[in-house]
Amino acid sequence: MDPRITEHAHILVDYSCEVKEGDHVVVTIEDHGTELAREIVRIVALRGGTTVIVQKSSETERALLDVTPASLGLGFPDHYYEMIKTTDVYIGIRSTANTRVLGNVDPDTFIQYQKMQNPIRQELLKKRWCGTITPTYAFAQEAGMSLREYEDFVYGAIIRDWEKEAELMYRIKEIVDRGKEVTISGQDTDLTLSIEGRRAVAATGKHDMPSGEVYTAPVDDSAEGYISFDVPVMVSGSLIEGVRLTFKEGEVVESSAEKGERLLNTLISTDDGSKRLGELGIGTNRGITTFTNNILLDEKIGDTIHLALGNAYPDCRGINVSAIHMDIIKTMRTGQVLIDGETLQKDGKWAWELET
Amino acid sequence: MDPRITEHAHILVDYSCEVKEGDHVVVTIEDHGTELAREIVRIVALRGGTTVIVQKSSETERALLDVTPASLGLGFPDHYYEMIKTTDVYIGIRSTANTRVLGNVDPDTFIQYQKMQNPIRQELLKKRWCGTITPTYAFAQEAGMSLREYEDFVYGAIIRDWEKEAELMYRIKEIVDRGKEVTISGQDTDLTLSIEGRRAVAATGKHDMPSGEVYTAPVDDSAEGYISFDVPVMVSGSLIEGVRLTFKEGEVVESSAEKGERLLNTLISTDDGSKRLGELGIGTNRGITTFTNNILLDEKIGDTIHLALGNAYPDCRGINVSAIHMDIIKTMRTGQVLIDGETLQKDGKWAWELET
Repeated sequence: MDPRITEHAHILVDYSCEVKEGDHVVVTIEDHGTELAREIVRIVALRGGTTVIVQKSSETERALLDVTPASLGLGFPDHYYEMIKTTDVYIGIRSTANTRVLGNVDPDTFIQYQKMQNPIRQELLKKRWCGTITPTYAFAQEAGMSLREYEDFVYGAIIRDWEKEAELMYRIKEIVDRGKEVTISGQDTDLTLSIEGRRAVAATGKHDMPSGEVYTAPVDDSAEGYISFDVPVMVSGSLIEGVRLTFKEGEVVESSAEKGERLLNTLISTDDGSKRLGELGIGTNRGITTFTNNILLDEKIGDTIHLALGNAYPDCRGINVSAIHMDIIKTMRTGQVLIDGETLQKDGKWAWELET
Repeated sequence: MDPRITEHAHILVDYSCEVKEGDHVVVTIEDHGTELAREIVRIVALRGGTTVIVQKSSETERALLDVTPASLGLGFPDHYYEMIKTTDVYIGIRSTANTRVLGNVDPDTFIQYQKMQNPIRQELLKKRWCGTITPTYAFAQEAGMSLREYEDFVYGAIIRDWEKEAELMYRIKEIVDRGKEVTISGQDTDLTLSIEGRRAVAATGKHDMPSGEVYTAPVDDSAEGYISFDVPVMVSGSLIEGVRLTFKEGEVVESSAEKGERLLNTLISTDDGSKRLGELGIGTNRGITTFTNNILLDEKIGDTIHLALGNAYPDCRGINVSAIHMDIIKTMRTGQVLIDGETLQKDGKWAWELET
């Protein structure tokens, strides 16, 4: 077995979820992840806890969704809900054999399925919980890598000194929290927005692994200027590339894309909130060096920022409401992020890394 | 996918467990069984129920048991227990990748693990529950077959007209229930025992699939005579072959085996109850044609009988108590079973199949 699987399990059990004696843990896997789940079971037992492994294989989820219109309706799994209510810790392992397995599911059924699961999700949010990923051929394929390359990539992003990573994120959070105005400049980019009264959140790996992001919510009517993004966005199976947005009083007034422009504009026109920014995120994980078409990892790429059109997160006191939340990423290896006129990040370096 | 997997799932959901609208179902799998579990999920949804799949992979179970002595002790999984208390139906799918995975586990740890699970087992017995098997390389290897052969074998045992099989079992049960004395005769065999006051149980596939057995408990001091068995017995990884037992007033007074005689005698000497018979079973599943070193299937081979030394089942009003329950099987393709002097079975045929 790859010894990095054991290290991954240690990080999840001890760092992310802080499992202690008497804890009950639920682990969900998809098609793979059995080895990681086994290592979690072993380490949780060493800490004096117990684990149940639930399998949600991709073809099973698909079969359930396919059969739903013909069935007596999606029942609510009371028995699963009781288990979730009783658990202390939840670890979800993304381990699909096929990232596109739900591609052709009837959208109404999918929404119905998501809604049905809402009480379970609400219950999970009360627990110590963490989402993670284990390398599979499907993810490697999505990333355009061999499985071996992808393993190196994923473990490079996960097996890090998280205390030190958290230190960096808290340092950035402090600066952002003190600041009122953010300016992003660079290639075909000059955008200003206000973050006054908002709170920055440091995603230090307690809820996702890999992690590495500090995010906040721009003030709704504050964005002014234009920005070009150089990382593709995948929206329900379609790529949007080369996005350029112009903002006036917080709203998108011009939008274009080299690829997928029609989809981009449809998304922007979803509702009032989808024309405004819901999030400004700063990626801090330098173990994530490249775009792999997986938003959980992409948005944490070190030395990137991302803006999301649409819904804002309440934990950063954002108030924009929308049915969409579309993250768009921009690498900052050239360009600058300024907070109240002071450099936070320039040409891929933090202010404190710059030669003076 | 092998369409027999769907048929198997239909039998489990509709015949064995009689799943109906609003039912909650827990399915456990080991290493394989994902396809069967998926078909169960699909059919349960069509009936208006919900399913949770729990994975207990062989290496995970082993890792848990190996780590237990070093851990803070085996915790009780309250969260799993809550799910089991809330479920209506439980289906356990034997699907191991390695039948010997627990071979070298510390026996004390194993006993501790079994004891820890006792409340869960007791709770499960209150539900509609069924144990079944899905073909794996490990089971095929144990049976000395190729996987394809083994698939044909297992599905031949499972995909049957269970209403008709049940009819046969109830017919035999009725005869056994009316009878007082059983005589088994044949090659080097002449054994008489009393079943007066006992009740026969027809294992019609409601709790195991494949099934096919009518069993009762002999009166403790009644066995007189001798019997030779021609099917091997596997006891914790060791084969015992060519067993011959002589009984006097219900107790084994002579015992021999062509292979594994020492183990046989050790088992017989376990306690007072292990010298007496706890069960007389009659195998009725003619889809099971051969010994495959899996007691769940072996004891149901059509045209066989089996006797168990040791503990009796309360559901047939047996009272013998022992720490062991060792089934030993004898084919009856030659020989005879008589109930109160009347032929029940002769040379591999039921009384009603014999030419008159």
